[in-house]
Amino acid sequence: MDFSQYFPIWDKLTSSEQDILARSAVMRSVEKGTVLHRGSADCLGLLVIGTGQLRVYSISDDGREVTLYRLFDRDICLLSASCIIESIQFDVVIEAEKDTKLWVIPPAVYKKLMSDSAVTANYTSQVMASHFSEVMWLMEQVMWKTMDKRLAAFLLEESGLEGGNILKITHEKIAAHLGTAREVITRLLRYFQNEGLLRLSRGAVEITDRERLLRLSE
Amino acid sequence: MDFSQYFPIWDKLTSSEQDILARSAVMRSVEKGTVLHRGSADCLGLLVIGTGQLRVYSISDDGREVTLYRLFDRDICLLSASCIIESIQFDVVIEAEKDTKLWVIPPAVYKKLMSDSAVTANYTSQVMASHFSEVMWLMEQVMWKTMDKRLAAFLLEESGLEGGNILKITHEKIAAHLGTAREVITRLLRYFQNEGLLRLSRGAVEITDRERLLRLSE
Repeated sequence: MDFSQYFPIWDKLTSSEQDILARSAVMRSVEKGTVLHRGSADCLGLLVIGTGQLRVYSISDDGREVTLYRLFDRDICLLSASCIIESIQFDVVIEAEKDTKLWVIPPAVYKKLMSDSAVTANYTSQVMASHFSEVMWLMEQVMWKTMDKRLAAFLLEESGLEGGNILKITHEKIAAHLGTAREVITRLLRYFQNEGLLRLSRGAVEITDRERLLRLSE
Repeated sequence: MDFSQYFPIWDKLTSSEQDILARSAVMRSVEKGTVLHRGSADCLGLLVIGTGQLRVYSISDDGREVTLYRLFDRDICLLSASCIIESIQFDVVIEAEKDTKLWVIPPAVYKKLMSDSAVTANYTSQVMASHFSEVMWLMEQVMWKTMDKRLAAFLLEESGLEGGNILKITHEKIAAHLGTAREVITRLLRYFQNEGLLRLSRGAVEITDRERLLRLSE
């Protein structure tokens, strides 16, 4: 994999900026389950994802989780470099949800680049705006939608990511994505099963009526 | 009021950039209740607040509201210029909560400045990061805190803003700030009154035990 193909504004950088980036970006392979960033003490750097999937989530004092957004091939992870933007005053956890290949750009290198290059600074704003938009979407979901609709939308999203109707995911995991208790998810899944929308088995959920699940999610 | 005193990065701009800004920034006085921005169709420009107070809120399809954050003297309002950052994919309403004097910088002027000046682009990132942080704070409140704690925190915040123990605010308004139904707020306020934390009268809430309200909010 060639870094220059994955860094979206590569062609807009000067050749000396390209040199600096190419020299500093370090390719890493991380296994599914690896925690790349936890809270504001960490500042690994800007991550450029080659292939894989990261989950960015918020965690409460007593360990409850809610997924803020996910990052996929060619996405940029900015919050792993939150130390370079001092006004970012919140903590997240960033975890590889699949085996992932990514480049790490050290925070000091990226910060210098941002301060010298309006192109990079504006690009960083765009990345932040897109993460901000994901969180606003979630906020609106949480504020205005009931959990059954959010669960239906989540199952459809998962099915899109996994490319099939059978989702190998526990009720516990679903609860952590949606920021609720396992019991709530189990109760809703059983209700969905009774309605013929899906079939439950050990460690898996099979979608059997995608059409109605979609209608429910809207 | 002198614009240069209110624009935080004024001294870091070149004199030609300062000229452009000084020529384009238009001072406006807006009355309490004026809606400055509603949804993505609007793009008034970057707002620099001289004195006053703006409320930035999200609104559901059926008209329910939740306050995202407020802006005060010398704050910058970026979402009123959301058209200049295309990755901002969400809608908010921005309303003057008090009579407000502010400068409007037209979106095209600010966009040009951002694209030429790394200083301005990085400053814009910082402003966005601080708004993003406010929304993350709210998200965490909504996810992990019960409404009684959120109400207690809101009453204390309001009391801080108004500078006294008597808050002239309706239950309806409080509900719109917190994104819940009026009935929920009325029930909680009555409970707080029974507990001796406050006293209710027509159109007002008087805090009578600030200490315990603070403990409850934590």
